[in-house]
Amino acid sequence: MSDDYRFLKAARRESVDATPIWLMRQAGRYMAEYRALREKHSMLEVINTPELATEVTLQPINAFDLDAAIIFADILPILIGMGLDLEFVPGKGPQLNNPIRSAEDVTALATPSAQDNVPGTLAAISMVREELNGRVPLIGFSGAPFTLASYAIEGGGSKNYVDVKSFMWSEPRAWQLLMEKLTHVVTDYLIRQIEAGAQAVQIFDSWAGILSPGDYQRNVLHFNVRVAKAVARMGVPVIYFGTNMNGMLDLVSTIPVDVYGVDSGVPIDVAWNQLGGPDKVAVQGNIDPIVLHAPWNVVQQHVDDVLRRVGGRPGHIFNLGHGIHKETPVDNVKRLCEYVHEQTEVEPA
Amino acid sequence: MSDDYRFLKAARRESVDATPIWLMRQAGRYMAEYRALREKHSMLEVINTPELATEVTLQPINAFDLDAAIIFADILPILIGMGLDLEFVPGKGPQLNNPIRSAEDVTALATPSAQDNVPGTLAAISMVREELNGRVPLIGFSGAPFTLASYAIEGGGSKNYVDVKSFMWSEPRAWQLLMEKLTHVVTDYLIRQIEAGAQAVQIFDSWAGILSPGDYQRNVLHFNVRVAKAVARMGVPVIYFGTNMNGMLDLVSTIPVDVYGVDSGVPIDVAWNQLGGPDKVAVQGNIDPIVLHAPWNVVQQHVDDVLRRVGGRPGHIFNLGHGIHKETPVDNVKRLCEYVHEQTEVEPA
Repeated sequence: MSDDYRFLKAARRESVDATPIWLMRQAGRYMAEYRALREKHSMLEVINTPELATEVTLQPINAFDLDAAIIFADILPILIGMGLDLEFVPGKGPQLNNPIRSAEDVTALATPSAQDNVPGTLAAISMVREELNGRVPLIGFSGAPFTLASYAIEGGGSKNYVDVKSFMWSEPRAWQLLMEKLTHVVTDYLIRQIEAGAQAVQIFDSWAGILSPGDYQRNVLHFNVRVAKAVARMGVPVIYFGTNMNGMLDLVSTIPVDVYGVDSGVPIDVAWNQLGGPDKVAVQGNIDPIVLHAPWNVVQQHVDDVLRRVGGRPGHIFNLGHGIHKETPVDNVKRLCEYVHEQTEVEPA
Repeated sequence: MSDDYRFLKAARRESVDATPIWLMRQAGRYMAEYRALREKHSMLEVINTPELATEVTLQPINAFDLDAAIIFADILPILIGMGLDLEFVPGKGPQLNNPIRSAEDVTALATPSAQDNVPGTLAAISMVREELNGRVPLIGFSGAPFTLASYAIEGGGSKNYVDVKSFMWSEPRAWQLLMEKLTHVVTDYLIRQIEAGAQAVQIFDSWAGILSPGDYQRNVLHFNVRVAKAVARMGVPVIYFGTNMNGMLDLVSTIPVDVYGVDSGVPIDVAWNQLGGPDKVAVQGNIDPIVLHAPWNVVQQHVDDVLRRVGGRPGHIFNLGHGIHKETPVDNVKRLCEYVHEQTEVEPA
């Protein structure tokens, strides 16, 4: 009966007994349990040690009434085996010490299998499945080729993305090769995650919204289409999530996935229609993560607005419009999960 | 003949002999002349000294074939007279040393007239008009109430805007009062700029796109409508510009202005239709500012795409989708202005 989960049913646009909910970055710094564990172990240590990754993955599942777990990992470690020197600098975030600067740097990138590159995450997926013992399904994930390329070129967070855009425009052949290599690695990674036990996967294209629709279409979109097509063959739901892409949802809608993540910058019903409509695709979202800092009546108002717009149509997975903020009050997270279920519960026929 | 400028005609959706172009932040750090002057004078010194503000305003007009000047100023100095301690920290940007933290702080805010608050900018506008002597029209500007409220509460730039959003949700009465006060000050400021000689004004709502459409509609939109209505009585074109608002252009379209600034996240023709269409409004935009770092053929491709989408319809002002980047190669700026004019030139009948 592993297909009978609310989350998987909603992803397939089937009727559910209550709207499923999970939260991007649901295992993280806002939880005391997480902070306690991170005091003893570095980010990469947690990610690479299946026991630790499993423990962190399960923390929010044990604390809240969530309908899916997502493997605790990060989008960047697959860059390490490709040749990039990744470091999580405390208080500063991820940093690549040898960012891509030239066509030669791209040629030099390796494309190891996920099995060789990130065995810890694959092992953690199997371990979480065992530990979950059927309570909720497990989601795997990867960064999308463009978002990974951006990090690889910028070397970390960026304000104006001058380096990645300049590279894309000035070195079209090297760009093509870089995206080919990342497409290969990402596709393999997602497939291996599914083989290891992931029951759905999400492609995070967190930075794609920095591009104009024309640049996204010319330089990025077809690589996402290739990843989605290859992974679809595995038969589990695939989710594509980007932010600040509300001026190009028609392009996003051509990526053949089951579910589109919608950010908080657009009414969810408007986005749903632009992405193909409730007859064709499922949607996930979309309250502003910062709303969880507000008094409960304001959270309620935002949840009610999303549920009213969805109108009970099958194919909605409740989520935030972006990752949960590190100082989010835990109590609001708990109430949010309960409230979404209460408001959408359907009496068994 | 002061109404015969390309820029003003396009803002009124009249036919033009060539598409007008100006660039947000066209006077700035990418120009050697600007950097040289800023070595001798601080940001606030330049803004508050009419002779210096005039010199900087004219730098891009003398260097490039631009169709409008925009007064050199900043959106934040009007907060000083309201009681906020503004400082431009070199290498870090603007900072308010006593950000708003409580309802009492809002009550304490003064609402001085622009004449008392920012006399230097008003005097600079008159001086630039004289110096321009009719070469091109002059644009004035102000931050929109929400964007100013965000700075006043966050105290500077922000990543997640937790403080301003939390204040808006937790202190609805104080929020209302803060927005009332800012609406009053902004409206007065724009009207005084027009009286001093500004021939059009732009309302910068650079941060409004961090809000969901629901929050924008409930807490922000009607203040923008009030500013726009009050300023419209002065009879000069009013421009509203926000970024990352492409999921809520239907709401933006209810602000009664003549021209909407469009960011690079949406095809300009798609945005134009959502904003009311070429029969009702003019649009300004929208190539990605970072494109000016690219080889010239890539710049050309982006310009061609915008012009093709506009299709020669009256009511288009060429601009970037956001402010010009501080390391932009000057040569591409020069060529951009010339190219836009060449490509759109109409033979006189």
